[in-house]
Amino acid sequence: MAVSANLVKELREKTGVGFMECKSALQEANGDLEAAVTILRKRGLASLAKKSGRETKDGFIGTYVHNGKIGVMVEVNCESDFVTRNPDFQELAKELAMHIAASDPRFVCKEDVGEDVLAGEREIFNAQARSTGKPENVLGKIVEGRISKYYSETCLLEQPFVKDPSISVREHIAAHIQKIGENIQVRRFVRYKLGE
Amino acid sequence: MAVSANLVKELREKTGVGFMECKSALQEANGDLEAAVTILRKRGLASLAKKSGRETKDGFIGTYVHNGKIGVMVEVNCESDFVTRNPDFQELAKELAMHIAASDPRFVCKEDVGEDVLAGEREIFNAQARSTGKPENVLGKIVEGRISKYYSETCLLEQPFVKDPSISVREHIAAHIQKIGENIQVRRFVRYKLGE
Repeated sequence: MAVSANLVKELREKTGVGFMECKSALQEANGDLEAAVTILRKRGLASLAKKSGRETKDGFIGTYVHNGKIGVMVEVNCESDFVTRNPDFQELAKELAMHIAASDPRFVCKEDVGEDVLAGEREIFNAQARSTGKPENVLGKIVEGRISKYYSETCLLEQPFVKDPSISVREHIAAHIQKIGENIQVRRFVRYKLGE
Repeated sequence: MAVSANLVKELREKTGVGFMECKSALQEANGDLEAAVTILRKRGLASLAKKSGRETKDGFIGTYVHNGKIGVMVEVNCESDFVTRNPDFQELAKELAMHIAASDPRFVCKEDVGEDVLAGEREIFNAQARSTGKPENVLGKIVEGRISKYYSETCLLEQPFVKDPSISVREHIAAHIQKIGENIQVRRFVRYKLGE
């Protein structure tokens, strides 16, 4: 059975498991997402769904400064102090700081985009879509596409990860959740550009 | 001639020159502050007054993370890119980040304390002073003393420098202005405490 790339992507985001494993699980599950998660779990690959609901009270603050001119600080949360001492976890915090320095996100996640900001963008996208003169029934799709692009440009978790643009930052973090075995969340970040 | 400690302090803040040199210059100038600055200048010690008015367009972003739990980022400005590569200047940025991690200031300088914040504090100090039952003519002095204490607790530049509490952060920076020969200014900082 052919499995859509979007479905594979969704399963990857949900589980943090690699592309091939997700694809094979989805094929085995005839495209049923929940069944595919169960298959991955049975294979010991995905215990993520449970983890990503767990509370993150501890964490590590990562920093990165590029030539003294761009500085980033990011708070990455996990569940236990034990994990905060894990070099892989600390490396993740550092990588995220580097990513933020390079990609300059405005928000952590979609939910952090204010409703007024989103409404403003939607209005602009609407006007742009209308000006194409395309039929009314495709305008909605164009606008939704633009909003999705807006998220992937401005939200850290939706941005293509600088060190591997084939995955999103969310997927990169999900892979660490999988590997480390604890829920991991980016709580906040700040980016200074000299003199801005 | 005896010179008051306050006057020596004022000269030090103005010039960044050491205590003994300031005291001796003030003695020579019979306590005249401006004359003492001139004396220090003639000695090649103080060219500061001019420097501290100059524009700071360049700089360095310093960071410090304490055990992954407290993170600080600070933007320190200077006049030229040349100075940003000076290890003493970079070390100052790092020291200031460490100081902020330890002393948790709320503002860079007095001017950054909002008028509403100050008015609120003043009201509290007034009430506290009144409750002492002291005569009306000393209440004003008590309040001013409390406000001065408030500044030295909450404003980075007025705080005692953690590595040498006998001087303020302002004086520590002034010493670097003197040494490096360029105006230096703290533009902004941010401090993260894990989970706050």
